[in-house]
Amino acid sequence: MFSFFSCLKRSELMDSFEEASIDIKMEIFEAIEDNYGGVIVNMKKEEPMDFLKFHTMLKASISYWRLKGKKGVWIKLPIELAHLVNAAVKEGFWYHHAEATYLMLVYWIPHEIPHTFPANASHRIGIGAFVLNQDGQVLVVKEKSGKITGTWKLPTGVVDEGEDICNAAVREVKEETGIETEFVELLAFRQSHKSFFGKSDLFFICMLKPLNFTIKKQDAEIEEAKWMPMEEYASPSKVNQSELSKMIANICVAKKEEQYNGFSALLTTTGHSAKNCYLYSNNI
Amino acid sequence: MFSFFSCLKRSELMDSFEEASIDIKMEIFEAIEDNYGGVIVNMKKEEPMDFLKFHTMLKASISYWRLKGKKGVWIKLPIELAHLVNAAVKEGFWYHHAEATYLMLVYWIPHEIPHTFPANASHRIGIGAFVLNQDGQVLVVKEKSGKITGTWKLPTGVVDEGEDICNAAVREVKEETGIETEFVELLAFRQSHKSFFGKSDLFFICMLKPLNFTIKKQDAEIEEAKWMPMEEYASPSKVNQSELSKMIANICVAKKEEQYNGFSALLTTTGHSAKNCYLYSNNI
Repeated sequence: MFSFFSCLKRSELMDSFEEASIDIKMEIFEAIEDNYGGVIVNMKKEEPMDFLKFHTMLKASISYWRLKGKKGVWIKLPIELAHLVNAAVKEGFWYHHAEATYLMLVYWIPHEIPHTFPANASHRIGIGAFVLNQDGQVLVVKEKSGKITGTWKLPTGVVDEGEDICNAAVREVKEETGIETEFVELLAFRQSHKSFFGKSDLFFICMLKPLNFTIKKQDAEIEEAKWMPMEEYASPSKVNQSELSKMIANICVAKKEEQYNGFSALLTTTGHSAKNCYLYSNNI
Repeated sequence: MFSFFSCLKRSELMDSFEEASIDIKMEIFEAIEDNYGGVIVNMKKEEPMDFLKFHTMLKASISYWRLKGKKGVWIKLPIELAHLVNAAVKEGFWYHHAEATYLMLVYWIPHEIPHTFPANASHRIGIGAFVLNQDGQVLVVKEKSGKITGTWKLPTGVVDEGEDICNAAVREVKEETGIETEFVELLAFRQSHKSFFGKSDLFFICMLKPLNFTIKKQDAEIEEAKWMPMEEYASPSKVNQSELSKMIANICVAKKEEQYNGFSALLTTTGHSAKNCYLYSNNI
């Protein structure tokens, strides 16, 4: 994973080698160039490295990339190489993001101009499911733990990374209540902030059509689940204490009475990489 | 930040102290209890700690929390304490998320059941702005770098953490073109995956009403900006190469012709913490 570094002229670079004070071959990290004048180093967990060697190579590499006019440096460190995190931080790297198995660190070479690293993922996505049966009843649950317990509410859940909103709603309803459904329409959504370690939150209300009716509730998270008459769900009772809940209930009532148009989900492809994606829009 | 640990009985706990083999006072970390049977440790950058002391206290603390029946353990490590990351990883912690200034690590005590840590932020949020002037012209730009250069497109941008979608659209248009606008309606959105370090992406098309008309483009990111006749923007030309772009252009045309309803933004409050939030929905 390393390449030999042979074109050294600047004294700054030499200084960094002298400082390391070991017999080195001026190895630098192999890096992928990105589209924005930056480089990306993917450290491999299969290639262990000690702190000093990593630190020395990092200094040499930064000097090399500076000579080459590079701007942003990304280093992806697998968790197995957690002992190297501090070496990067000592060199001025900071954290960009982390997942269970790795930490992504970044460094900006041209200190005279502000960095242009793209922002980390900023939002969690949740869904609430409005499942209406042919008897005009809506599927509601009481949760065992969390912020809202002891209150009837629509089934809710978190959209997984890589999961489509329309599919997440179907999955959550099936998991919590055993009811199979199909996605009908996205009725509304709310955005809120500082809801989770300072992150923001989008919550999408999805209307689903039930395909079976016998509830088999999930015991781990759900205290109770039942079909509730729409009138009861929509009444200004304990179900809908907040202004937001009342507004959502009003939208559900309007939808039931065919007085409301939400967004349909249409499968298409993204512009550039031609990946499948859903466009949510009013049917036109 | 530490409390004294005096109720030790289990041999496992004693073992962990013997292993540390130093004269310790069985200090454990001070922790906040969460609503889900877990504990949160906020390490302070103002209170430096060496690797061995941290490692020893961590072992003792985990044993203590296990005795107390705790499940999830969160440790927030400021970047100034990056030298402690590896001690936590050695004890079985993994990364939950990171921001520029800190790393959040997690550990699940009851190994016999799967962890229930909430997911990390999973999505980046972007906006595209449909700004239509009274002459039936739409505001378009060419970007200097990135995936799409040399092509006219709607102004786009990333929604900051903590920023409302409707405000982000107004901000981006002002930054890129100097045009002041007000938010009218959210017309549609698409969700795509694996777009950014494996994260997902939501992209909202917002209609904005321009309040001035003289373009002052931003030089750093924008090559050109202009008002383009709607017919040109909507034609199957180089502007709209992808199916998705054509669908979005069709929606914009329908909106111009008052044949389309998007979602309005209504300021309300969240259910529990009564924070301000926007609900995006069809007016009813």
